[in-house]
Amino acid sequence: MEYYEDLEPGSEREIGRHFVSREEIIRFAEQWDPQPFHLDDAAAEASVFGTLTASSCHIYSISALIFSKNPSRLRAAAMMGTEIRFPAPLRPEDTLTLIECCLEKRRSRSRRGYGVVKGRSTLRNQEGRDVCVMDTTYLVECRDPDGDD
Amino acid sequence: MEYYEDLEPGSEREIGRHFVSREEIIRFAEQWDPQPFHLDDAAAEASVFGTLTASSCHIYSISALIFSKNPSRLRAAAMMGTEIRFPAPLRPEDTLTLIECCLEKRRSRSRRGYGVVKGRSTLRNQEGRDVCVMDTTYLVECRDPDGDD
Repeated sequence: MEYYEDLEPGSEREIGRHFVSREEIIRFAEQWDPQPFHLDDAAAEASVFGTLTASSCHIYSISALIFSKNPSRLRAAAMMGTEIRFPAPLRPEDTLTLIECCLEKRRSRSRRGYGVVKGRSTLRNQEGRDVCVMDTTYLVECRDPDGDD
Repeated sequence: MEYYEDLEPGSEREIGRHFVSREEIIRFAEQWDPQPFHLDDAAAEASVFGTLTASSCHIYSISALIFSKNPSRLRAAAMMGTEIRFPAPLRPEDTLTLIECCLEKRRSRSRRGYGVVKGRSTLRNQEGRDVCVMDTTYLVECRDPDGDD
């Protein structure tokens, strides 16, 4: 397990990858975001992107899925907020790589034993384009509740 | 269908509601975000919130689901980015109400026939607490591509 003390601001690392099939895009959209351009090729052709694209909540869920499969797990206790951008669409047969970077960290003033961490997670496709950039603030457990780093 | 011209900055409206069962929280988390405090009561008791809570990507997906069931559908063509906060947790048996407000709008300079709209969507629980606040910028189709409003 990884604790607050293990995070080093500025350091980047690859967390994992996920291949996105056409079936997965449609299945997720059917359940949670059934808009025509996530479901149907003809409707998607007439959309801004011209092809089938994944729902933004699907993209966000993929980041959670990759994190959950990462064996070196951060002791994150709660997510406090996130700012998400979708610079490029996610299309069928894309492979996304999740890259994480700790931007800044400090000990929590109100919750002893926790740190407040701001991190950037980026989902990048096989062409090197960023599909999703998330700047997230979360609570992370400290190994030493009384440390002063 | 609703177009860019139909949006009135400052006006709020209720879009719809969603009841969240314990089973739905666990089922979503199993598939996309299998962290112990979304899956297991004992692990959740030891967490910051003390009870089972829904994954943030589940909460985000619920907003998409409520939007998709809303009969008066906005002609949104693409989501450009969103800033999400989770001020309160989502717990089993909560009912969320989705409230939408248009914050500002302007015609797109680069895509003729589309408007750039900034809206705030709030998921509020039955106690009146905001579980999720999303400020989102999206492209919306114009009824009249050559209008000057």
